[in-house]
Order: sequence, then C-alpha cells, then structure tokens
Amino acid sequence: MPVGTRGTVKGLWPQQLREAGAQMILANTYHLALRPGADVVADLGGLHQMMGWNGPILTDSGGFQVFSLAELRTLNDDRVVFKSHIDGSLLDLTPESAIRIQEQLGADCIMCLDECPPHDVPPERLAAAVDRTTRWAARCREAQQRTDQALFGILQGGIDPGARERSAQGLLPLDFPGYAIGGLSVGEHPDLMYSTLDFTVPLLPADRPRYLMGVGRPIDLIEGVLRGVDLFDCVMPTRNARNATAFTSTGVVKIRNAKHQRDQSPLDPACDCSTCRGFSRGYLRHLFLSNEMLGPMLLSLHNVAYYQRLMRELREAILKGGGADFRSAHLAALRDAT
Amino acid sequence: MPVGTRGTVKGLWPQQLREAGAQMILANTYHLALRPGADVVADLGGLHQMMGWNGPILTDSGGFQVFSLAELRTLNDDRVVFKSHIDGSLLDLTPESAIRIQEQLGADCIMCLDECPPHDVPPERLAAAVDRTTRWAARCREAQQRTDQALFGILQGGIDPGARERSAQGLLPLDFPGYAIGGLSVGEHPDLMYSTLDFTVPLLPADRPRYLMGVGRPIDLIEGVLRGVDLFDCVMPTRNARNATAFTSTGVVKIRNAKHQRDQSPLDPACDCSTCRGFSRGYLRHLFLSNEMLGPMLLSLHNVAYYQRLMRELREAILKGGGADFRSAHLAALRDAT
Repeated sequence: MPVGTRGTVKGLWPQQLREAGAQMILANTYHLALRPGADVVADLGGLHQMMGWNGPILTDSGGFQVFSLAELRTLNDDRVVFKSHIDGSLLDLTPESAIRIQEQLGADCIMCLDECPPHDVPPERLAAAVDRTTRWAARCREAQQRTDQALFGILQGGIDPGARERSAQGLLPLDFPGYAIGGLSVGEHPDLMYSTLDFTVPLLPADRPRYLMGVGRPIDLIEGVLRGVDLFDCVMPTRNARNATAFTSTGVVKIRNAKHQRDQSPLDPACDCSTCRGFSRGYLRHLFLSNEMLGPMLLSLHNVAYYQRLMRELREAILKGGGADFRSAHLAALRDAT
Repeated sequence: MPVGTRGTVKGLWPQQLREAGAQMILANTYHLALRPGADVVADLGGLHQMMGWNGPILTDSGGFQVFSLAELRTLNDDRVVFKSHIDGSLLDLTPESAIRIQEQLGADCIMCLDECPPHDVPPERLAAAVDRTTRWAARCREAQQRTDQALFGILQGGIDPGARERSAQGLLPLDFPGYAIGGLSVGEHPDLMYSTLDFTVPLLPADRPRYLMGVGRPIDLIEGVLRGVDLFDCVMPTRNARNATAFTSTGVVKIRNAKHQRDQSPLDPACDCSTCRGFSRGYLRHLFLSNEMLGPMLLSLHNVAYYQRLMRELREAILKGGGADFRSAHLAALRDAT
C-alpha cells in the first residue's frame, strides 16, 4: 500500500496510482484528525470521495505515532494524548475515539489503537504494552458501530516469542477479520525482523489477511511475503523518490549523480511506467538539480510502479511454486535498496 | 503558451498539458543554457524529446533577462554578459550565440536577441535600445543556420509611437516569419499597454504571427487578441496555482480561504478539467494547508485549462463576429484576476 498520510500519496494523482498498479492505499488517523479534522473529511464525503480514490483504503489508528511522536504525547491505560505537531493543540485518542474517527474517515480497513513500544524496551515494559494493546483491542471491537469496515487487531511483542504468543492469545478470541503485526521496523536489525516473522506469522489464522505495518524495503517485502504476510505499507517508494533515489531492476539509482548528465536511457529499461517510457535519466537529473516539482513526481510514479510490479511478479512466482527462486534472483539487486 | 522556463511547465506532465488544451509551450534560453547546458539538451535529443513534448515549442532568446536580471549582466553593443544566478559563472550572449544555443535547444520558434529596457527610461536610451535591437536582429538573421526553425524578430520601443515605428521600420525589411512585441508588461499600467498595442500591432504584417511577450492576465489576453495579437506567454497560470490562487468562470478563488473548508463543490463548476471533475474545494484547501505537492499540481492543471479554454472560446466568438461581446461578458469576472 502506497502511503497517503494526509489524504494524498505525495506527488501522484489518484489515476496515476492506479496506472502504477496500486490496489490499496493507506492514510493516517492521527494526521487527518489534526488536519483537516475527521468531521471535515466526513463533510467532504469521506476519504474515498475526498481523495478521488475508489479503491480500498486502510487507515492506521494513531498507534504508530505513540512510538514515532513519543515526545509529543502522554500515555496511560485509558488514553494517549498528543500535543499537535502543527499548533500544539491536544488530540485525545482513546480506543473508542480512534474508532469513531476512523468511522468518520470511512476507510475500508481500520486499525485498533495499540501501543507500539521502542524495540529495546525491557521485558516488563514490553509485556505491559502487549497487555494494554490487548485491552484496547477489546475496547475497539466494542466501540465499532459501522458494519462495513474491517477492523484489524494489532499484535505487539517486539522480537520476543513469548510476548508475541501472549499478544496472539489475547487478540485471537476477539475474532478480527484481519491482523496486523506491529512493533517491527522500529529500529531492530532486519534479520531480527525476519526471525520474528518466522515465529509470529504462524500465530495468526491463515484465512485472515496479515499486515506487516510500516515495512519496508523491497527485500523486506519479499522476505515478509515468503513468511506469509499479505499486506505492507511504507513511505519508502515516495520518500526516496523525493530524495532523487529510484528503485530499478538493476539496483538503486541516485539520479543526481553526474554520470547521468547526458544519459538518454530510461531510469529502468525493464520498467513500463510512464516515467520510463517518456523520459531519460539525463532529464530526470536536470529536473532534480533545478528543484523542479516534476522530478519528484516522475520518480514517485516510477518507484510506486516498481513496488507494485515486484509484488505482482512475486505473486506469479509463488503461484508457480518459485517463490524462493524469485528471492534468490532478486537478492543481489535488492541488497542495497534502502 | 504555458511557460516551461527550465524545460518543464511546473507541476504538470506533458500529457496533462495536452489534456488541458495547450498547443504550444515556451522554454527559456538563458536558464537552459546555464543548466543543464544547451549541449546537454542537444545530447538528450533536443527540447522536444527531452521534455516529452511533441507539440510546438518557442524559446525566448535571453533578451528578457537583460531586463529582469539587470543587476547580473553587463551590456554593450556587441554582447550581454550574465553572471549566472546559480553559481556566478559567466554566460556570454551575442546575437550569434543566442541563435546557436537556440539551434541546439531545437525549438520550433526561436527569438532574436533583443534589449528590453525598463518602461521608464528616457527617450534617448529607448531609441538606443531600439537601434541595438534592430542591429542584433540583423546579426541573428545572418547567424541562423538551421532552416527548420522560425526566427521571430522582436519590436522594442516602449510606449512611444515613434520608437515603435522606428523599430518596425528596422525589422520588417529582414522579413521575419513572425514578430514579437517586446518591452511591454515591464511595469507600465495595463491601459498604457493596450494603447501601445493600438498603434503597434498595425505596424506588423497581418500574415505573420504576432506575439506579445510575457503577457499576461486573462483580461490582457482578451484585450491583446482583440487588437490582433496571436501568441502570448505568461507564468501566471502556473505561478498563481502554486500560490493557491485559481482562475475560475466566476472570478479568482483563493483556495486557502477558510470558507472553502467544507465545500464539496469543484473549483469551477463550468470547468471540465480533471481537477474540477475529481476534487472539491475543501480537499484542495486541505492540500495547500498541508503543503502537499498535489495542491499546486491540481491547481496548475486547472489554471492552464482555464487559460486555454478562455482562448478557445474567444476564437469561437471572434469567428462568429462576437469578440467585443465576449470581452464585455467576461470583464466583471476578470477585472480582479491578477
């Protein structure tokens, strides 16, 4: 899922997202609740109509901001209170209000409010976060009123097998239509993330979508899929695009590099996106050196198309029984794709 | 002509320019010569291929920067030397090098190097600029080697009928395939521009395109067309779009205004551009308040579409004999469109 934090995947028209192969996108409860406000989004017809995106949308709950904006919030068992990064006003998130806001936003998949602790907390704090996340999940389930939104539970438990098991035991009785794996991609080494997936994914029912939150690099998606993950979200394709970095079939391309100055070839000859069909590396470099908006626009389209094609090809490989071969074949090009 | 100073009309894909109705665009010799360099543009296949624009392109000569970057250049009868606004390096423009650069860039219409003086110079300086522009036009004509580019002469002479006549007398014997009116829209009152057009346009042959450089507001385009001008260029539709200001059939809309917060209606119900078909005023406001790229992108498309539709409707009105009525009908909505 390309990330549209504030109700727009940066630099792309909705139609271009579709052309790039995107099926589902993500938006952010915390950011949209602060601006323009969930009631404003509702007045504008809900997220789909407001953004002009008629495909599925998932909203996260604000739980990740409990981690990423730790200095702007206070937390207790009842609620988390954020001090707005925009104007300092207070945003009060309880499990109930997180659901109410997401019902106003109107996404297809919505998330329970969770507590995402840093990766290096001591065991007792990790356990407390798991238990709080479980209690909050029950309150979210209870608070849900709309019947047309799939509410996902979120597993916590860091890289500890026992804590993950405890989290699953708390959540699964609530019978969510989908489950997310939170608490990864928060600073731990990728190998630790993969090994955590090894014992965490099997805890989740095979007939419900499994969503690995905030992940990740192309190689992380492959490693995750091969371990049974169905959904991912990450800002990397669009953020890296704005930083002049492209994912290609032959590895990462830093388009500001002088060697591209007179290069008439496309960013990625193996790519059929509008950027690669229409423009040269030399032109892309010129756009970035000139700080022209079109540079980030063109690279964002390409990077989203790259991610979508990677997942499409991986699906096809798996259906043919060749998932592991696909991984091996892509490893060299992807190792440096950060 | 939408303006693509550095080889991109800001915020728009070439395909979107076409969809907005643009037929011809403008790029800038001075800026492209400095970055990426005319030889780089040539190596990238010329402007059309580099930009992915297969319609006509006009490049100005750098003459306008003689005016707009007066503090960065020195001027004598032989040449103008610019100190690059990017890195301080020197760019040496002579009539001959201005043509050579434009032949490398490869636009369909290219411009003579001219001297564009400020609007309030004393008569003797105005006359000197006219005479220099005439001498330079002859040198440009002489320097031209490619036969597939239409080289336009540029009239100077400010708002003085005698100086304009003298300029025309100097240029017309050179038999250019098109003529531009330079030295307007440089700070003089619009009424003075219109009255200058009244006596300047008739000096130019009716069977050659007449191009009013750097103009202008929607009302200026109508006033110019009704006086016989065929071509215009202005950054206003895209620059105003980036500043959250839209041209609409009912006047100017400042989309950041609080009154648009919950407004589900399109920017301009009379407009069929993708922005007006797909997005609400409330969403556009949110994008601008959130500093999201999509805001300038959407408004740029709309404003270019607005300009193109205005010209299209004016053409149709003129063909039906109703040009003056068209002007009257639009005057109220356009008066504040600055």
